[in-house]
Amino acid sequence: MPSSTAVVTNSMRQRLKTFIENSTIQRILLALILINAVILGLETSPDVMTTAGSFLMALDKAILAVFVIELTIRLLVHRFAFFKDGWNVFDFIVVGIALVPASGPFAVLRALRVLRVLRVLTFVPSMRKIVGALIKSLNGMLSIAMVLGLVYYVAAVMVTKLFGEAFPEWFGSLGASLYTLFQVMTLESWSMGIARPVMEAFPYAWAFFIPFILIATFTMLNLFIAVIVNAVQTMHDDEHKDELDAEKATQQQLLEQMQQLQLELKALRRDINKPQE
Amino acid sequence: MPSSTAVVTNSMRQRLKTFIENSTIQRILLALILINAVILGLETSPDVMTTAGSFLMALDKAILAVFVIELTIRLLVHRFAFFKDGWNVFDFIVVGIALVPASGPFAVLRALRVLRVLRVLTFVPSMRKIVGALIKSLNGMLSIAMVLGLVYYVAAVMVTKLFGEAFPEWFGSLGASLYTLFQVMTLESWSMGIARPVMEAFPYAWAFFIPFILIATFTMLNLFIAVIVNAVQTMHDDEHKDELDAEKATQQQLLEQMQQLQLELKALRRDINKPQE
Amino acid sequence: MPSSTAVVTNSMRQRLKTFIENSTIQRILLALILINAVILGLETSPDVMTTAGSFLMALDKAILAVFVIELTIRLLVHRFAFFKDGWNVFDFIVVGIALVPASGPFAVLRALRVLRVLRVLTFVPSMRKIVGALIKSLNGMLSIAMVLGLVYYVAAVMVTKLFGEAFPEWFGSLGASLYTLFQVMTLESWSMGIARPVMEAFPYAWAFFIPFILIATFTMLNLFIAVIVNAVQTMHDDEHKDELDAEKATQQQLLEQMQQLQLELKALRRDINKPQE
Amino acid sequence: MPSSTAVVTNSMRQRLKTFIENSTIQRILLALILINAVILGLETSPDVMTTAGSFLMALDKAILAVFVIELTIRLLVHRFAFFKDGWNVFDFIVVGIALVPASGPFAVLRALRVLRVLRVLTFVPSMRKIVGALIKSLNGMLSIAMVLGLVYYVAAVMVTKLFGEAFPEWFGSLGASLYTLFQVMTLESWSMGIARPVMEAFPYAWAFFIPFILIATFTMLNLFIAVIVNAVQTMHDDEHKDELDAEKATQQQLLEQMQQLQLELKALRRDINKPQE
Repeated sequence: MPSSTAVVTNSMRQRLKTFIENSTIQRILLALILINAVILGLETSPDVMTTAGSFLMALDKAILAVFVIELTIRLLVHRFAFFKDGWNVFDFIVVGIALVPASGPFAVLRALRVLRVLRVLTFVPSMRKIVGALIKSLNGMLSIAMVLGLVYYVAAVMVTKLFGEAFPEWFGSLGASLYTLFQVMTLESWSMGIARPVMEAFPYAWAFFIPFILIATFTMLNLFIAVIVNAVQTMHDDEHKDELDAEKATQQQLLEQMQQLQLELKALRRDINKPQE
Repeated sequence: MPSSTAVVTNSMRQRLKTFIENSTIQRILLALILINAVILGLETSPDVMTTAGSFLMALDKAILAVFVIELTIRLLVHRFAFFKDGWNVFDFIVVGIALVPASGPFAVLRALRVLRVLRVLTFVPSMRKIVGALIKSLNGMLSIAMVLGLVYYVAAVMVTKLFGEAFPEWFGSLGASLYTLFQVMTLESWSMGIARPVMEAFPYAWAFFIPFILIATFTMLNLFIAVIVNAVQTMHDDEHKDELDAEKATQQQLLEQMQQLQLELKALRRDINKPQE
Repeated sequence: MPSSTAVVTNSMRQRLKTFIENSTIQRILLALILINAVILGLETSPDVMTTAGSFLMALDKAILAVFVIELTIRLLVHRFAFFKDGWNVFDFIVVGIALVPASGPFAVLRALRVLRVLRVLTFVPSMRKIVGALIKSLNGMLSIAMVLGLVYYVAAVMVTKLFGEAFPEWFGSLGASLYTLFQVMTLESWSMGIARPVMEAFPYAWAFFIPFILIATFTMLNLFIAVIVNAVQTMHDDEHKDELDAEKATQQQLLEQMQQLQLELKALRRDINKPQE
Repeated sequence: MPSSTAVVTNSMRQRLKTFIENSTIQRILLALILINAVILGLETSPDVMTTAGSFLMALDKAILAVFVIELTIRLLVHRFAFFKDGWNVFDFIVVGIALVPASGPFAVLRALRVLRVLRVLTFVPSMRKIVGALIKSLNGMLSIAMVLGLVYYVAAVMVTKLFGEAFPEWFGSLGASLYTLFQVMTLESWSMGIARPVMEAFPYAWAFFIPFILIATFTMLNLFIAVIVNAVQTMHDDEHKDELDAEKATQQQLLEQMQQLQLELKALRRDINKPQE
């Protein structure tokens, strides 16, 4: 035995890998996630909890135990490579949350346990693909998003200095201003709720709000357009490439045949000129 | 007579088919639907009802009777195949609603009778085509919609556990949370109406609402883009195919002519070499 | 003189046409419209009115007189053909409004006088083109708009019957329901303002509002997409046509040269075979 | 020395240019801008200001001094050409604001000092490019924006005359009306907040608001589409040009080879015909 410290031998790793990647096991795990989603939904109902609360909690714990075992196996199989895949990290965190004792300052973690249901995304390949595409489409937006972020930050500092004292609830701190400007960007109650009251104290406040809305909306529009153009381009490229390749092949064929024609013509000319000498 | 149980013979079916598919009959039925739409609109006015209520109700019933007869004929003509067409099922349900006695718990069905007017969609081919296209464009959105649905469900469970006790009207049950989060997704009063009051009790509630809005909005945006890209692609494919086919045909012609040229050149070479031997 | 009743002779018509279509005159008229726009804006300020009210009103009347003369000339020049152009009809109505005595029930017409400023659209060719494009782009939306209109009407009748009695202000009549549902379609206060209060009386009202919003929003989205796809298609067609024509021309050239080559080859073959006979 | 009045000689200018355009210096300046951004953000917090206020203010002033020196050097280097680049003008104004004594009527300038942070846009090339693209994309919108502006102005005058007296807060002056209609265009509280109260005094006010919203929304939609179509077109043109050029080159090659073939064929024909004479 080369390394006696290795608890899991390579052949055992191989068998575990075959087991965990088995499609039936995968389908059972997906079913467990969906059942867990229903259980977590039912747990929000006090009526259901009084009737079948202890049963549901037990089931929830059992499913969680299965998930922990599953992840342990996958960790044993892939070792450190496990954390190289974003989806594994996601699964690890989402299951890990449930193991932290949710008491005292961590009570909020109890609510985050439902994030486990998002493992459906990991298990259904088509959803995995879509989330991948969504994250990828963020790339094309990055630089516009940074411009928007800069404008947003500058506007927040400005507004805190201008209206912070008079309207502490909305603009009292940088955080409050950032939140309020986010609300303004979504156009929610920006006028009746925020700008009009501010304008009663600062009659020229519209000179901040209207340009801010125009710039923010226009930049967000361009963010969206970047995504649309990217998507259209990708689609276009994918389908166009095949066409283009086919066309190029035909034209290459034409060119080659043309050259062969010329060679043949030259041969012909030699044939004619030779005997006549 | 082979089957004496058949009340409607085949020749009769044929005649009924010819009758019901007659374009004049179709136009009369469409006119009746439109008249019915006006009647159902007028029935909402108490003034009109006191003046001509009984007349309108009688007319409504007469038109309904025509529809019942029409659908009976169509059922006799197509038999079970009738239910294979989605539009027939739609017509059947929409007319059927009016026949259920709308009393007691079914009083709400009285209001649903107006759905009958939607039969215009069945009768006008251009509208039928558009509704078909709308439903078809849903396909391309399905997988993104499922991701959005999953995120939405997880968010609703989370929010019920987090804020349910403190804000029972908005987040008291899973249903209430789903409704409130739908409102938040449409950005209606999400801040002044929901998030700000919640933040008074839970100062960090923005850490839920802002990511939720960003994720939901971004996913919805991608839902829309999927539809746009699909539409552009379909348009592009349709028109491009003809062009591409034409181009391929021309290139094929070129290639064939080139090959003929080569054959002719070879023949010429044979002609030259033969006599000189 | 053939027709003594004709007050304006043909030569006079010709001269008037030359006069009114003169580019300097056109520019003066455009300037007058813009001055009129400023005057009508200034008239909204009580301060300005007390200082220079009578002067502004006189100027306004003078400009109106010029417009009336201009339109009279154009009417004399084009006679009945004048009304064939939508822009002329627009000018005629918009100037005509100012001539109706705006008193008693027509007091509202006084405010409509400002519509005259929209004549800028008639005089600036680039704007005329854009308004034309906007109106044209409505065509592509027509059939979807009709589907949306039908759904909207059916929903309004339904909602009047369902909630009319309990909420007369919002759903009391077909008109009120149409207005409220338009508001709901724009997503303005649909939940906090309308749906939540309604749900207090009818707990299942969400079963109407949420599908209505989903259907209306989705259909409107498709309305927009129709316009976008149309615009992209038009752009694509315009630019693509030139490319395609150029490509076709080149390929045609290739084909013709190929045929000439074949003819020449045939001639060559004849030349070779002839002398050897 | 040719001109003794020139304080900065050409060789000195050259050295200054090399210094200021040095990439390390550029990176230091960018770092200073980012530090300044953090400082300006911290200055909004009263807690931080009581602890480290004087230190932060001193640092802020030091950074400002660096900026003033930087801009002075750049002015010396480029002289009047400095103001030909929009980005330089932007830097000049944004730094200049901080030098104006922000007291009395200019107190608002103190808040505008944060605009300095926007210099990040000048220093990061990718952001500079995006802002350039955003500004450029405005061009394609110009004529539609002018149509929208005209409609907006006409609507504001009209609404001031119609509702100004009854609702002075919203429509009392042209300015108030422009602001309120901007709010209506963003659909914020247009119905519950504005149109419904107005309709209590003027029952037919919907006849203004609904067409205004439809026209404004539709025109804005077309504004967006103009930007999208422009973006797609630019992308399309960029990538398409290469393909098209490649294709044209191949076809040109084909044509030339074809012509050579014909020449060769003609030569061959001459060769054949000559000896047989």
